[in-house]
Amino acid sequence: MPTEVANEFDVESLREAWPALIDEERAEAFMLLTEEDGRNLFSSLPPADQSGLLQYLPNGTASVWMRFLAPDDAADVLQATEPERRPRLRDMLDAPTRREVDALLAYAEDEAGGLMSPRFVRVRPDITVDVAIRYLRQQTMHNPETLYYVYVIDAEQHLRGVLSLRELFAAPDNATIADVMHADPIFVRESTDQEEVARVVEQSDLLAVPVLDDEGRMRGIVTVDDIVDVIHEEATEDIQKLGGTEALGAPYLDVGFFSMIKKRGGWLSVLFLGELLTATAMGFFEEEIARAVMLTMFIPLIISSGGNSGSQAATLVVRSLALHEVRLQDWLRVLFREIKSGVTLGAGLGVMGFVRVVLWQQLGWYDYGDAYVLIGCTVWASLIGVVCIGTLCGSMLPFLMRRLGFDPATSSAPFVATIVDVAGVLIYFSIAAAVLRGTLL
Amino acid sequence: MPTEVANEFDVESLREAWPALIDEERAEAFMLLTEEDGRNLFSSLPPADQSGLLQYLPNGTASVWMRFLAPDDAADVLQATEPERRPRLRDMLDAPTRREVDALLAYAEDEAGGLMSPRFVRVRPDITVDVAIRYLRQQTMHNPETLYYVYVIDAEQHLRGVLSLRELFAAPDNATIADVMHADPIFVRESTDQEEVARVVEQSDLLAVPVLDDEGRMRGIVTVDDIVDVIHEEATEDIQKLGGTEALGAPYLDVGFFSMIKKRGGWLSVLFLGELLTATAMGFFEEEIARAVMLTMFIPLIISSGGNSGSQAATLVVRSLALHEVRLQDWLRVLFREIKSGVTLGAGLGVMGFVRVVLWQQLGWYDYGDAYVLIGCTVWASLIGVVCIGTLCGSMLPFLMRRLGFDPATSSAPFVATIVDVAGVLIYFSIAAAVLRGTLL
Repeated sequence: MPTEVANEFDVESLREAWPALIDEERAEAFMLLTEEDGRNLFSSLPPADQSGLLQYLPNGTASVWMRFLAPDDAADVLQATEPERRPRLRDMLDAPTRREVDALLAYAEDEAGGLMSPRFVRVRPDITVDVAIRYLRQQTMHNPETLYYVYVIDAEQHLRGVLSLRELFAAPDNATIADVMHADPIFVRESTDQEEVARVVEQSDLLAVPVLDDEGRMRGIVTVDDIVDVIHEEATEDIQKLGGTEALGAPYLDVGFFSMIKKRGGWLSVLFLGELLTATAMGFFEEEIARAVMLTMFIPLIISSGGNSGSQAATLVVRSLALHEVRLQDWLRVLFREIKSGVTLGAGLGVMGFVRVVLWQQLGWYDYGDAYVLIGCTVWASLIGVVCIGTLCGSMLPFLMRRLGFDPATSSAPFVATIVDVAGVLIYFSIAAAVLRGTLL
Repeated sequence: MPTEVANEFDVESLREAWPALIDEERAEAFMLLTEEDGRNLFSSLPPADQSGLLQYLPNGTASVWMRFLAPDDAADVLQATEPERRPRLRDMLDAPTRREVDALLAYAEDEAGGLMSPRFVRVRPDITVDVAIRYLRQQTMHNPETLYYVYVIDAEQHLRGVLSLRELFAAPDNATIADVMHADPIFVRESTDQEEVARVVEQSDLLAVPVLDDEGRMRGIVTVDDIVDVIHEEATEDIQKLGGTEALGAPYLDVGFFSMIKKRGGWLSVLFLGELLTATAMGFFEEEIARAVMLTMFIPLIISSGGNSGSQAATLVVRSLALHEVRLQDWLRVLFREIKSGVTLGAGLGVMGFVRVVLWQQLGWYDYGDAYVLIGCTVWASLIGVVCIGTLCGSMLPFLMRRLGFDPATSSAPFVATIVDVAGVLIYFSIAAAVLRGTLL
């Protein structure tokens, strides 16, 4: 009953089941799809999945799909394939595409050259609109590439101008291309970082941006659908770093257990070493602690409040820097803003802490002794200090990181919390020593 | 010396200075730009900035820019304008655009209807390719909208098929549109959530997706450049929530001070109330603490390690859920993975903690007394327990949130850390009580 099997593997349920399947099962199910469903599914897969699938498809079928890919996508698939398996896939490409793909593989993955497609529509500046449209209609029949813009290229392969297809359509038949094109088009270099390429595309609202080499020759285009992937990738990296992990670089369930432990354990150990300083800091106040044990009960409360406010500030500032809403030179404005925020938020939490101490005493739920109002004041003042340190560290560390050439997202919530924990212990016990001297201490 | 002033306000330095300027200064500088620079800058501004600028431009100039906007962008500007100032801007639009804008304003901002442009290219299924191309060339001259796809619409306004411009180009002159179009095109509904629209566009690699109403009539298209904004917005929201703030909904420096305090103070207070439980938890162990004060020195270390591992797990899982790399039904797989991770990471940190205690004792840097090996063991075992609780809470809370219909990103790093702090105190002192009974306690 072949229809039943085919029904079981209709494209939607295959999509559903996809993450749970191994490559061999994927290939088996994929072979049962209609050509159109197969095309849709295949195009929507990430390169690693495409590569895995191709390993288990019979040679003939794999060739068809390998040739179906645009050169930049084929390059991504090869990059995602283990080196010893690459030749099989590479050999499936026709000779001109293979040359294009080899050229693309020479670029770093995260620069414009590594993102671009070497296929674009080019015309000479001196032909007429009418001729250009007839030429393009002929060209397009044999050219599988998407068509957004027409690039005007001179004999030296220099980019002279650009014209959207809509503009070409709207232009009078016998104007020359040079008359109707936009001179000075926006472009990026082969070595432009992908984050910058994304910014250029977003700011210009272009569907594709031309990539030039150092001699000003046009080498390819980066299209907006590649930019969408870049934006996701960059956000994921920032989120993971902010959470205190190295960027995983692959979906959670696809990362090997030990590779994940390494990416998490590294930071966790560094933070642990930093956190050891809290024990040292508390060592300074050994006598005070021994005399007023009840003070220790507020340690987690106080240091965590600092950590939380620091985590908020760090996240807000890191994201604003990433979106270019805030620039390096805005640090002083942010500093003032965060001091104000820290005092306000800290005072608010401080009042809650004070009320907690006094209320528990009054209700007889806990006995803090005669000095309970002073203990309440200590908690209140410490919270203001700790929350301020939190907003300060959280907001300034990302600027410092950027200034030193690191990724601002490295100033993760846990990183800030660790600094604030050590500072919090020192602040709390110093205030306690000052406020309670003569009474409890 | 007008050229000097104009030089001072060339478009690049204006872009640089933009965030630091108030609306009035922006308008003044904007008036000095060339038409082309003005157009580029204006299109790249977020709606709130466009609105602010328009307030301070003279009526005539403001009208030109208001009419320059596509209906969906004009609607965004009106939405970003204070209600009492909206009529002035709305009246600047020509009557047909005003009707389109009014229709768009009726949609929620975060659904397909609120994102879409009502202008798209439509042809009837029964005309020939040749006629379609000639018709489009005429249409395009008067139509400012970008041209990606040609939508095939029948007399009842139902969407029958779609054709990319490239495909139209490549088709034989006298085929009919119905012959060469793709039937069953991908589409979204007016009320589809913007996150889902983004997913559809990404998965299909389309440049624009048609929006249908409940009767299947085509109402507009959502284009990929709007999707880019949606992706940024959703990532920003997730990042801010993960950092323990409500989503700001506007750039950091644009949010009013009190509105920001509200968005941060809310969660901070909730977390503080949760954190108060640590004081209560420590109250249970009052006697143990009084007898072995040195135990308190490891409290920050232990609870923060749990918080850090929880923050890692929460961030990884929230992002994977957002990118649909992990689905709700994968929770058990994630659970097993995180238990394994927790034990591994916790044991690693535990060893470091144990070494710290024993080393300080051996080197004579601190005196933990005769039971120092047992104290080291307590620290070691507590770290395993606390880190496990951290990875467990951090990884499962996002699933629980999603299951209950909340945003998984609500299980922020600080939220997880707070839960783990309370659990950490209980685990640490329980283990201490068990291990040290008879010696120190």
